[in-house]
Amino acid sequence: MTNVSINTVESALNSYLEAISDSCLVYENVNIKEALSRILYEDIIIKTDQPPYDRALIDGYAIRSTDVAYASYSDPITLKIIEEINVGNKEKIKISAKEAVKISKGAFLPENADAVALPEDVQAENDTLKVFRSIIPDSCVAKLGEDMKAGEVFVKKQRKLRPQDIGGIIGIGYRQVKVFKKPVVTIIPTGSELVPIDVEPDEYQIISSNGYILKGFVEQLGGVGRISAIVNDDLNQVRRAISRALEVSDMVLVSGGSSSGSRDYTLKAVESLEKSKIIAHGVSMRPGSHVLLAIVDNKPVIGLPGHPVSNMTCFNVFGKPVLRKLAGTPRSFWQERKDTIKLDAFLAKNIKSPEGKEDYVRVRLIEKEDGKIMAYPYTGKSSFLSTLVKSHGVIRIPAECTGLYEGDRVEVMLF
Amino acid sequence: MTNVSINTVESALNSYLEAISDSCLVYENVNIKEALSRILYEDIIIKTDQPPYDRALIDGYAIRSTDVAYASYSDPITLKIIEEINVGNKEKIKISAKEAVKISKGAFLPENADAVALPEDVQAENDTLKVFRSIIPDSCVAKLGEDMKAGEVFVKKQRKLRPQDIGGIIGIGYRQVKVFKKPVVTIIPTGSELVPIDVEPDEYQIISSNGYILKGFVEQLGGVGRISAIVNDDLNQVRRAISRALEVSDMVLVSGGSSSGSRDYTLKAVESLEKSKIIAHGVSMRPGSHVLLAIVDNKPVIGLPGHPVSNMTCFNVFGKPVLRKLAGTPRSFWQERKDTIKLDAFLAKNIKSPEGKEDYVRVRLIEKEDGKIMAYPYTGKSSFLSTLVKSHGVIRIPAECTGLYEGDRVEVMLF
Repeated sequence: MTNVSINTVESALNSYLEAISDSCLVYENVNIKEALSRILYEDIIIKTDQPPYDRALIDGYAIRSTDVAYASYSDPITLKIIEEINVGNKEKIKISAKEAVKISKGAFLPENADAVALPEDVQAENDTLKVFRSIIPDSCVAKLGEDMKAGEVFVKKQRKLRPQDIGGIIGIGYRQVKVFKKPVVTIIPTGSELVPIDVEPDEYQIISSNGYILKGFVEQLGGVGRISAIVNDDLNQVRRAISRALEVSDMVLVSGGSSSGSRDYTLKAVESLEKSKIIAHGVSMRPGSHVLLAIVDNKPVIGLPGHPVSNMTCFNVFGKPVLRKLAGTPRSFWQERKDTIKLDAFLAKNIKSPEGKEDYVRVRLIEKEDGKIMAYPYTGKSSFLSTLVKSHGVIRIPAECTGLYEGDRVEVMLF
Repeated sequence: MTNVSINTVESALNSYLEAISDSCLVYENVNIKEALSRILYEDIIIKTDQPPYDRALIDGYAIRSTDVAYASYSDPITLKIIEEINVGNKEKIKISAKEAVKISKGAFLPENADAVALPEDVQAENDTLKVFRSIIPDSCVAKLGEDMKAGEVFVKKQRKLRPQDIGGIIGIGYRQVKVFKKPVVTIIPTGSELVPIDVEPDEYQIISSNGYILKGFVEQLGGVGRISAIVNDDLNQVRRAISRALEVSDMVLVSGGSSSGSRDYTLKAVESLEKSKIIAHGVSMRPGSHVLLAIVDNKPVIGLPGHPVSNMTCFNVFGKPVLRKLAGTPRSFWQERKDTIKLDAFLAKNIKSPEGKEDYVRVRLIEKEDGKIMAYPYTGKSSFLSTLVKSHGVIRIPAECTGLYEGDRVEVMLF
């Protein structure tokens, strides 16, 4: 390889993330009903106290706790039922000493009442209520503002909205929310041997499939994936395709042609564009050492190797964090944990790993009868699509490590 | 509570899952490009060997390994470059003894060649190639059928299709796949105090929000969520709403009214429908003990308590596994792990738990500087929407356990 500076994965990724300016981050207003899994752009503030009044938490009898302070099974206290309040009732009711009101769950507590007696602690007959035990104040009552107070932050910005967040935000009265715009990512498949999905390939051709893998990941990460027409291995065609893609996208992925071979044009194409900057070409990792990380006109352009395994590995290592930055995805550890699901397993075979290169090894997982999870490594060639499909996750072997042994405990990132 | 048989969570769920017949499971054909996250209904079989020919894995020189068996730096072997083959070239080329062909990554290997020499191991000048080391057979070559063999199972049915599965299935030539039909789940919000999202509530009314939480979960689980009009607390209205929902759905969730109060009509409504069967009404869990599990006309109908926390807890405990069964979601442990993300944490406070009830306690997670994750329990009232939004996950305390202590290691299911 000529003209290739070798970087560690960490240094290359850090430089790249730093080079991506926050100015890419824009928002849009969406109806809260359509906001599932979108990333919140601003804090959601509580508008009014919740509940907006003292409310019964159960079906029972609203009482004054002082009236029944000395009630017991042997010596019950008798109250007079003066009214019944159902949820949604709008008339204001007031109780006086020794009075009770039959109340349904969720209903407004009558004035002077401070607790709700459970049906099992009372006996009602016509308008008479016998109470068999003392009831402490606020029993079975949700007090005004006890759930939420006006002015407090309800949901912090950059949360990826979960179903319960949607329900909560609707519940406190919002109809529109500001969310990060979905980054548009154009994927450019390059390679003269490729044919589109709707063409029957002859034996020398390959159906272009990397683009669909990348599009799927982009969408899972909250972006919009566009696959451009296939581009031949030709400098001008590659350059034109990148340039056109940049006009309509927030990020560009060039699939194939990122190496330094005679027919690899991604680097030359990017260098020939105005306002382009190469952050790294070549990273000490396996597979995927030929990745190209660039910025053109303030937008990330990544050159991914064409072999499927390298392609997907480089996307996961570099494309994913970059896209998450563009998409506004938070750094909150539990949300990251949801995006990158990890699982502990035991290695089923020794693995050799090249010194000085971070190694990403695909594994297939098998759960043994005793619940132990075994990880079977695939050391197959990175051109093999099948290992991507057959594997359940990947383990990362640091650059300084030259191998792992059968029985070693490994952390598998599920994919 | 009258007429309520108390079941454990496990026995209720098992009886319910058994009662749901597999005949609900139907398929549809979809374009593979649209199949991301869909559940495969049948095995995908490999049609032809992959690669379909011996292929160069790198840019280099196709050679016969026997010709260079004794090559070394001190004593290189000279071959004649007779041709150049690029990816997509269609003419058949053949090499003889002491001949080589310049070849590009992915191209068809010439007849008689059995390896590709790396550029760093050779020196090319005009049509002369000096080879400086021996090359073992099959070096840098993907052999015909080495990746996949015709007739083998490529992806097993019931896999939830990942981006790489989509790419792989496209790569082996499929255009359509059979997937499980998305179950249609109608959610019926009940409660006379509820108003729809587009109505400004007065102080006695509540904006109906549980439906949106349930819809979000249904969609995350691969179903189609429909929210019906709000139904008042009225037996006939509830019955009619369930009956109408069943006509167009595979599953019905009735939100609110599942208890045994005077204004709870879900049980009565379900019992009054033809071909209805109550599997459980009342389960020893907290929150959510008033859940109703029923089958009407072969379709699951679940009565969920109206309080948001109970509502969501019951959906997660009962609705989720039922919906997964309808949606065809596999039992493969690693896929389940992706659906229910777990994380170990340390409890930050003692929790008391009722004996004989399975307890689901929401927790908020905080990561300490040393990387230790602390779980802060919310013991707030189950009517409080805010704790659902503020919590990051839930811990399950078994029925026989009466509490946990500060510092205990707990497994948090993120939600």
